[in-house]
Amino acid sequence: MAVYTEVSDEALRAFLSDYELGELLAFRGIAEGVENSNYALKTARGDFILTLYEKRVDPAELPWFLGLMRHLVSRGLACPEPVPGRDGEALRVLAGRPAAICTFLPGIWPRRVRPAHCEPLGEALGALHLAGDGFSDARRNGLGPHAWGPLLDKCRRDAAPELVAELDASLAAILRGWPEAGALPVGHIHADLFPDNVFFLDDGRGQRVSGLIDFYFACTDLLAYDVAVCLNAWCFEPDRSFNVTKARALLRGYRAKRALSAEELAALPVLCRGAAMRFLLTRLYDWVNTPAGAMVTRKDPMEYLHKLRFFQHAEDPGAIGG
Amino acid sequence: MAVYTEVSDEALRAFLSDYELGELLAFRGIAEGVENSNYALKTARGDFILTLYEKRVDPAELPWFLGLMRHLVSRGLACPEPVPGRDGEALRVLAGRPAAICTFLPGIWPRRVRPAHCEPLGEALGALHLAGDGFSDARRNGLGPHAWGPLLDKCRRDAAPELVAELDASLAAILRGWPEAGALPVGHIHADLFPDNVFFLDDGRGQRVSGLIDFYFACTDLLAYDVAVCLNAWCFEPDRSFNVTKARALLRGYRAKRALSAEELAALPVLCRGAAMRFLLTRLYDWVNTPAGAMVTRKDPMEYLHKLRFFQHAEDPGAIGG
Repeated sequence: MAVYTEVSDEALRAFLSDYELGELLAFRGIAEGVENSNYALKTARGDFILTLYEKRVDPAELPWFLGLMRHLVSRGLACPEPVPGRDGEALRVLAGRPAAICTFLPGIWPRRVRPAHCEPLGEALGALHLAGDGFSDARRNGLGPHAWGPLLDKCRRDAAPELVAELDASLAAILRGWPEAGALPVGHIHADLFPDNVFFLDDGRGQRVSGLIDFYFACTDLLAYDVAVCLNAWCFEPDRSFNVTKARALLRGYRAKRALSAEELAALPVLCRGAAMRFLLTRLYDWVNTPAGAMVTRKDPMEYLHKLRFFQHAEDPGAIGG
Repeated sequence: MAVYTEVSDEALRAFLSDYELGELLAFRGIAEGVENSNYALKTARGDFILTLYEKRVDPAELPWFLGLMRHLVSRGLACPEPVPGRDGEALRVLAGRPAAICTFLPGIWPRRVRPAHCEPLGEALGALHLAGDGFSDARRNGLGPHAWGPLLDKCRRDAAPELVAELDASLAAILRGWPEAGALPVGHIHADLFPDNVFFLDDGRGQRVSGLIDFYFACTDLLAYDVAVCLNAWCFEPDRSFNVTKARALLRGYRAKRALSAEELAALPVLCRGAAMRFLLTRLYDWVNTPAGAMVTRKDPMEYLHKLRFFQHAEDPGAIGG
């Protein structure tokens, strides 16, 4: 679900009076996104998305996220552009929450990923990494390698002992093999580029990416780690098998925009293990900390245990499409 | 939640190829409505709503609902118009479910009902009742008085004994006082015209209704019963008090479009009790039959117990705005 905060029509009208968006024509909650409340907003000026930032997002970090999006749009990337109010400020308050209006992006996210999506996805990821260049502020990855041990500790009591033992061993190996600071190129990464954050349009000549959304995990980290996240999120089949054709297409698309160095390519297996560990641990944490009756869809952490195990047996970048 | 059925992009594309709607531009789940899955669909031809009918709707009844909507639009009522495919058929199949595309209606439903909403609401309800005239097929109200006893029986085992005893007594009194067949005018009614089914636009000169939606409880029944449903749904404050100013405005608006006979007015108190009983019982049934951990928002039946008690003490139509 993606409407946690209800907005009264009076509050909405008062909020919109600070913008130059013309007459309000429609306002509907969107059943997508899991962290924030999202509304489709239609005014005389067109379609927009209104986001109310819920408790998982630190308000102090919102200016960085909106600044990055603005920068990416200025570099020609198709991502939501924060729309400023009359006073020039895009980050405002609505119904007691930080809120922003962004431009609407056309496109449909793929409910089932096909190989034809993966090359354009890779290109879009490469383009994102290039476009991020020049945005000078940095944001540390709050869910990077330093966070994984503490996250695992918080699950230790409630998770099965065999699972905890397996993750302890895997995590130690991942951290031992993790690239040293400075060894690989760093830039602004999306860090959560799952299929529901990538819109596609089919112009009759094939799939093209029409937009990247949801930059609220974006941070400054190893560019190749973003590739590893995508290999996790886009290249496994529902039967848990790894589709190397998709991985090759993803990497081909990426490299068409940005070259991967030999060091990045060599690090890809451990980065993939790290990305699998990151999603496994946040899902495990949510799983053991969400009451069974809560109105929240808990994602199955075991999906990522299988991915982690797959990448542990992939020593050679060639096995994962590199 | 209002997306129970996920639609793959291939399935969507194949489905849309049976329409003349032009290029697909966007497709987003809508977090509104509780019975069906609703998607906002944008194509080169404009905005539409795609509905997949879930298990509570009997597929055999869909032609009646869509036919009624088509009739109402032809009479100038602002309600969703089913969009036919190339073969002229609006009711189709998508992702294994009956599905239809309807026109998009502008407007915002009131999260908090103000008196200013109630007169235009009443007018829209009166206009709906007039516009229904001439649609010759009838549909029995599946949740009418004959259904309340059996519904209560299904809750008998799991509900508190005092509550069951109170409802038994109330129901017997309601059924004793219910208008005889033929005593009051009958027509096509919405039967579920809650605030989230009524869109408003504020054109600067006040609220006007821009659309009525969700006709999947519509049926052929006492017109004044629809008024009673609205008195239940629109005229109570969050503190459970009855706002007679709202009720008067609602009835004033209604009567500006369609006169209420002396018999209808006299029956209004018992019709209001019946409407309260209907929503109380369906909510109670859902409450006792929904596992606590299910991903469904259960609506509190007690809200309608308070409404029922209020209407039991309102013998005089004047007390409820008449």
